[in-house]
Amino acid sequence: MVGDVLLAIDAGGSNTRVVVVDGDVTCLGYGVSTSGNPTAVGADEALRAIRTAARAALAQAGLEPASVARVVVAAAGEQGLMSDGAIRTALGTPGTSVDRVVDILAMYHSAAVEPDGIAVVAGTGAIGARFSHLRTERVVDGTGWLLGDRGSGFWMGRKVARSVAAHLDGGGPATALTALVLADLGLPMPDGEPSGEQRPAVLESFIGRVYSDKPVRLARFARLAFEAAGTDEIAAAIVAEGEAALARTLRLTREGHEDLPVVLGGSVLAQGVLGGGRSPSGALAEALDGADVRWVHEGAAGAAVVGLMLDKVEVSATTLDRLHAGIARCRDA
Amino acid sequence: MVGDVLLAIDAGGSNTRVVVVDGDVTCLGYGVSTSGNPTAVGADEALRAIRTAARAALAQAGLEPASVARVVVAAAGEQGLMSDGAIRTALGTPGTSVDRVVDILAMYHSAAVEPDGIAVVAGTGAIGARFSHLRTERVVDGTGWLLGDRGSGFWMGRKVARSVAAHLDGGGPATALTALVLADLGLPMPDGEPSGEQRPAVLESFIGRVYSDKPVRLARFARLAFEAAGTDEIAAAIVAEGEAALARTLRLTREGHEDLPVVLGGSVLAQGVLGGGRSPSGALAEALDGADVRWVHEGAAGAAVVGLMLDKVEVSATTLDRLHAGIARCRDA
Repeated sequence: MVGDVLLAIDAGGSNTRVVVVDGDVTCLGYGVSTSGNPTAVGADEALRAIRTAARAALAQAGLEPASVARVVVAAAGEQGLMSDGAIRTALGTPGTSVDRVVDILAMYHSAAVEPDGIAVVAGTGAIGARFSHLRTERVVDGTGWLLGDRGSGFWMGRKVARSVAAHLDGGGPATALTALVLADLGLPMPDGEPSGEQRPAVLESFIGRVYSDKPVRLARFARLAFEAAGTDEIAAAIVAEGEAALARTLRLTREGHEDLPVVLGGSVLAQGVLGGGRSPSGALAEALDGADVRWVHEGAAGAAVVGLMLDKVEVSATTLDRLHAGIARCRDA
Repeated sequence: MVGDVLLAIDAGGSNTRVVVVDGDVTCLGYGVSTSGNPTAVGADEALRAIRTAARAALAQAGLEPASVARVVVAAAGEQGLMSDGAIRTALGTPGTSVDRVVDILAMYHSAAVEPDGIAVVAGTGAIGARFSHLRTERVVDGTGWLLGDRGSGFWMGRKVARSVAAHLDGGGPATALTALVLADLGLPMPDGEPSGEQRPAVLESFIGRVYSDKPVRLARFARLAFEAAGTDEIAAAIVAEGEAALARTLRLTREGHEDLPVVLGGSVLAQGVLGGGRSPSGALAEALDGADVRWVHEGAAGAAVVGLMLDKVEVSATTLDRLHAGIARCRDA
């Protein structure tokens, strides 16, 4: 026998968020855990994280796994890494239906109840998508750190790190990014210009630090490009090129559908569009011209909305607002 | 008691080559194996490869490990991953001295006996170095696939792959590289232009193939850029930018020492300088202006030369020629 609540899982690259929602779209419980993304951490660790967050959410709701009627999992990357059966086993819900959706659809419905619309997210990666009635009609980029994610945090952070290496190496111009990156890593800034003899010790240390970490961790240097863009030419060029790339992704995603709502998310896009102390980017403002823009931070509410829509429950903007308020209450309880 | 022959090991990223040389600089034995580079394959596998190649070389020489007086290991990357003791144990030569040198020094002395000179190698990676009496006086780039290796095979191959993804995605211009890369991977070329709806199936397949492989394998697409450079704008731009980067590395390495011999190696530099059917690059020809240029393919002979120099044996150009001839005889025996 299965129950009557919905378990919505936003399995992100850093955190997993789970909400338990009933048929009246009331938040009954909320739980968080570490990354539940199998591409990022492997299937075993992802399943453990999902179970931990789900148990916390169900405990807050005062419910057993048997109460769960439907499970929605929103995740980026390869959906095939976790089977439906493995998810049911991890959650202890053998009889439930499991629906998997791309994370960006959950992001979209966290801020929009319209069946047709657009979402563009640029955090560590960068992707744009257009949806219609839960179907993905178009995807732009989102091809990952090696092949694309143009204008993403990794894309910018990699350029920052390469500029620093070239500066220390003598193969590129001096940049204020060097002092910022070395300070971030707790490495000493060398006195004066690179000597041009052998290889500076600080460059050896920098190389050692970068290669002992996962490549994707270079994304953390993106914020330093925004920080230095006002005063440093190299940083300004990285930011300008990144914003031009994101503007292109935005334009391509909206192409022919400029009347649809646009949901935006991710730290890099927020820095680019909102400025964060800087003047917001002209390229991004132009690409957003005339759009009904909404911002989103996570996909848990949207995963719940997707589950309700799959159950043919009508979700209005008012209901979505109430869901957000309910999740905030559950989270802060 | 130790013996009187020299065991010279060129522990490369693809192959390990070992030569056994006596005090008269005569090649007594030659052996090959898989990668002996601990950064590429891990210390255990690297030690196994080194032992396999060394045993083959000693067997050809009709010698026991006890005959070895000195071991020279030339390898790129982190020298600390294999201890001298681990190398002695793997080789079964407990009493010998072990000297480790950077692979590019062995490349240099494979083609030059002058104590002062320059080597620039661009294969999968890219590095320039100036040497004086076995000491490294200057290093340019060689900072690896994430931070530099500007103009290297990985650097070009990554740009090729990203151009293909952008073409298939609609986020970048059409390029002849797409058909070449898809054919290389055995993937079907889509009919006509990308549809702009969802994501083309061939792009999904391409993404899957790229991420299921090691990032460094993107280097294999560099040759496709050279192949298409005569007829495709995107390929021509990748080649031109790569050659400009290598020309800069060459200029910086030679700076203030333009009279020294220049040893060049690596498939990408060979394509760029020699043309391979194309007109050789103007940028590289300019950076090599007036230089005494020699080409090198591997570092085994140079590792032996380094060992002899450490033993205070005088090595003339004639001796080096004789060593190369001896290695060729051993290899073909």
